[in-house]
Amino acid sequence: METRPASERTTIRRLPKRAAYDRAMIDAILDEALHCHLGFAVDGQPYVIPTIHARVADRVYVHGSAASRMLRTLAGAVPACLTVTLVDGLVLARSAFHHSMNYRSVVVLGTAQAVVEPAEKVAALHAIVEHVVPGRWDDVRPPNERELKATSVLCLPLTEASAKVRTGGPLDDEEDLGLPCWAGVLPFSAVPGAPVPDEHVAPGTPAPACVTGYRRPRYTA
Amino acid sequence: METRPASERTTIRRLPKRAAYDRAMIDAILDEALHCHLGFAVDGQPYVIPTIHARVADRVYVHGSAASRMLRTLAGAVPACLTVTLVDGLVLARSAFHHSMNYRSVVVLGTAQAVVEPAEKVAALHAIVEHVVPGRWDDVRPPNERELKATSVLCLPLTEASAKVRTGGPLDDEEDLGLPCWAGVLPFSAVPGAPVPDEHVAPGTPAPACVTGYRRPRYTA
Repeated sequence: METRPASERTTIRRLPKRAAYDRAMIDAILDEALHCHLGFAVDGQPYVIPTIHARVADRVYVHGSAASRMLRTLAGAVPACLTVTLVDGLVLARSAFHHSMNYRSVVVLGTAQAVVEPAEKVAALHAIVEHVVPGRWDDVRPPNERELKATSVLCLPLTEASAKVRTGGPLDDEEDLGLPCWAGVLPFSAVPGAPVPDEHVAPGTPAPACVTGYRRPRYTA
Repeated sequence: METRPASERTTIRRLPKRAAYDRAMIDAILDEALHCHLGFAVDGQPYVIPTIHARVADRVYVHGSAASRMLRTLAGAVPACLTVTLVDGLVLARSAFHHSMNYRSVVVLGTAQAVVEPAEKVAALHAIVEHVVPGRWDDVRPPNERELKATSVLCLPLTEASAKVRTGGPLDDEEDLGLPCWAGVLPFSAVPGAPVPDEHVAPGTPAPACVTGYRRPRYTA
């Protein structure tokens, strides 16, 4: 795995063997995660708010109501942190201490900027819809002027980003290996269920392929 | 749904109809979520780090290496924010603008305190293991003195907490209801796969019931 810390602030100190600074890995984790958690501070109090994001090349976009405190705060060029986490499995060791999780996470530090140029704003909203449901944008009514005005879009550059990844089984102490308990990994993944049409869909109307064949993108090294 | 904002800071301003301050709801979301995202600031830069939590009565515990920057920073009585989010479904509307997600999230604001009393520390670690895999603690070797010393445990009181919940189908504009596209909800959930024993488990050893029958707790109002 390529190792290239982008900055002193994004150098992973704790368990550095789990660190990755490879952009392909970072991009894949950002793209697979349905949502992120955005951190910002107001009067010294940190807030961590879940929201939807989308990556386009070297930028991550988030959006929200133009009236939202989070969007208004972040548009003020304050330091922000955008984090995504995918839980891949529960790691069951023979000791309580060595229990762990397999996960892939990305932390992006930076200063968000408001996207005001109309074409970039629409492109960002397109990316956000397609991030959540690939193939959906072309099936639906695009935003009108009023909706665009009511929506704020921010972008965060991917210049300071790092990934942290844990894979594999438990790392038990040698002297615990003889204990009689089962140990291993219980894989975990977020999966779609059966689509539920709303009451205005005519009975018998099939759901589109982007719904029936829904899957998250997966990174293959 | 009972409405009882715990403080001015935890009063939900954006889409207040999605807000809940009911402790039973808050507890259920905290208990179902496998992990949380912890926010804290270092030199004015917010950091949002995924970690495992567990609730015991009116407190949420987190743990980590005594050497971790996050744990050392938070033990210094700085303002923190602990957020958990469960994604329940993707909401597909007839317009790009009205796309949404069904989710349940909890935000806890407060100041973390280091847990130093040995009995409370072990009780917190017990709660964390049982939070992730209910029924696991009694099967494994408990922490020894060295492990307890290497582990920091922090607690955050549940005095300033709020939940935000979205459920149901898309809320399309009246004039879009005639559009020909499918609309509805694609439910999403995190589910366990088949357990993978490690190489030290004797072939044919069955996984325990806490693994084979694994499920997250669910809130039933």
